[in-house]
Amino acid sequence: MVCLVGSGPEDIRAELAFPTETPDIVLKRATDFLLDSEEQFGDIAAIGFASFGPVDLHTDSPTFGHVTRTPKIGWSSVDVVGWIRRTLDKPVAFDTDVNGAGIGEYEWGAGRGLNNFAYVTVGTGIGGGIILDGQPLRGVSHPEIGHIRPHHDRERDPFPGVCPFHGDCLEGLASGSAIVARWNGTLEELGPDHKSMQLEAGYLAHLCAELTYIVSPQKIILGGGVAAAPGLLPAVRRRTSETISGYLSDELYGDALDDYIVEPGLGNRAGALGALAMARRLVLGSA
Amino acid sequence: MVCLVGSGPEDIRAELAFPTETPDIVLKRATDFLLDSEEQFGDIAAIGFASFGPVDLHTDSPTFGHVTRTPKIGWSSVDVVGWIRRTLDKPVAFDTDVNGAGIGEYEWGAGRGLNNFAYVTVGTGIGGGIILDGQPLRGVSHPEIGHIRPHHDRERDPFPGVCPFHGDCLEGLASGSAIVARWNGTLEELGPDHKSMQLEAGYLAHLCAELTYIVSPQKIILGGGVAAAPGLLPAVRRRTSETISGYLSDELYGDALDDYIVEPGLGNRAGALGALAMARRLVLGSA
Repeated sequence: MVCLVGSGPEDIRAELAFPTETPDIVLKRATDFLLDSEEQFGDIAAIGFASFGPVDLHTDSPTFGHVTRTPKIGWSSVDVVGWIRRTLDKPVAFDTDVNGAGIGEYEWGAGRGLNNFAYVTVGTGIGGGIILDGQPLRGVSHPEIGHIRPHHDRERDPFPGVCPFHGDCLEGLASGSAIVARWNGTLEELGPDHKSMQLEAGYLAHLCAELTYIVSPQKIILGGGVAAAPGLLPAVRRRTSETISGYLSDELYGDALDDYIVEPGLGNRAGALGALAMARRLVLGSA
Repeated sequence: MVCLVGSGPEDIRAELAFPTETPDIVLKRATDFLLDSEEQFGDIAAIGFASFGPVDLHTDSPTFGHVTRTPKIGWSSVDVVGWIRRTLDKPVAFDTDVNGAGIGEYEWGAGRGLNNFAYVTVGTGIGGGIILDGQPLRGVSHPEIGHIRPHHDRERDPFPGVCPFHGDCLEGLASGSAIVARWNGTLEELGPDHKSMQLEAGYLAHLCAELTYIVSPQKIILGGGVAAAPGLLPAVRRRTSETISGYLSDELYGDALDDYIVEPGLGNRAGALGALAMARRLVLGSA
């Protein structure tokens, strides 16, 4: 969990990072940090919370601002927004971590000026948001991009997958947890010549192709610790270009996809800065 | 090709349907019909054209209103909007056939009141649009939903697929053309107990699941001749529910998905009425 106090990437007054433990510990630590920061810097105008999902984002729902059902111990049905509001009487913006990161990238990163882009994080899990004219796409709920199902060739990759719901969905096969469970190491540790690199690139290319066909984004931003492994992004571009083979790539994206599948402009701070951007929008009245 | 003159589904003054031949024949026949209708009914206020794709929808592009690259003989790079404008000096709304059908469903059909739904047609080909607050989602281009890649189990389904670009993408495996090429008959002719039904339902369920994970729509409307085959829609619902197994279905959609995966409210007239809705929006100033 990363907490920031400030008004933008060039004006961070205070920062705190700590591991995500049980909700009581985490939420108390976060709100204590904000209360301490108020003593030091004066009133905080608004709070943005970009949470791991699934979460309830419907403002007219009785469980708005709750984490809903998650395998993370102790976090199911936790009322995050309620906790914050009980502690600090401020406007609270609430969204998924990936929607938040997408908002951050729209305001200050690789998504500036775009009408339609996807932000995907490949870390311990895999999640993504679609940002349309600066606003996250919502429907029945938020996207759950990590659970799409790439083709799983069990001869080439006998690993059954780690998703507790689906086994071999994308998150089950290509998340950081899956990589470590399958190879006993991260992509960086295994190195770019290990076969894990091409396997991972193929799974992520499936995601990029599906996003391209279904959403037609102007960019796909791939964030998260796994996506940052040296060599992975170029491999994902190559495999995506092969997958969409001729039909779309030449005319609309060029062959190389260098400007299409990109790293976050805000690096590994996209999520935290995104929460800041959400709070800032509340203050500016543009949320 | 279907041409309508009117102001809405309850007020169709004239209608003409004919096969899609080469552009000269088709576009002349359509514009002649409109000119004749003007003589009979008075001035036409605006024209909506919902075209098979891929098409250029960027109004600031030099090739706006063109069909771009298509395997349909004679149609690549045809300036549809230019042709219409040269013949009838009217405002012209232009979009893909599936976006048009989605607009029709939003105005008068199964998409009324929804913020986010998908319209998919499964006919000779497979295409789809995402309608957000009544407007089709756009990005680099329009969605090309038909070209996503479901898992293709070659033991169960040795058919290589008919897509000229990808072979066994969704359209290559599950379009009407694919069904006829594989089985020498349509789903209706083969009947609900033929194994084609479950195979088709599985491929379309993959699409419905991917749409659910990526776009989180409130409804998925399945139109087109193939989707109308008796027994298919319930089978797609069952298979989709199995695919998203527990993760999303129970809380958000219910088990049966009866209200989630639905047939078009406008039946097989969604496309033509959609084009009418597009023209109507131009007149009302809400396009």
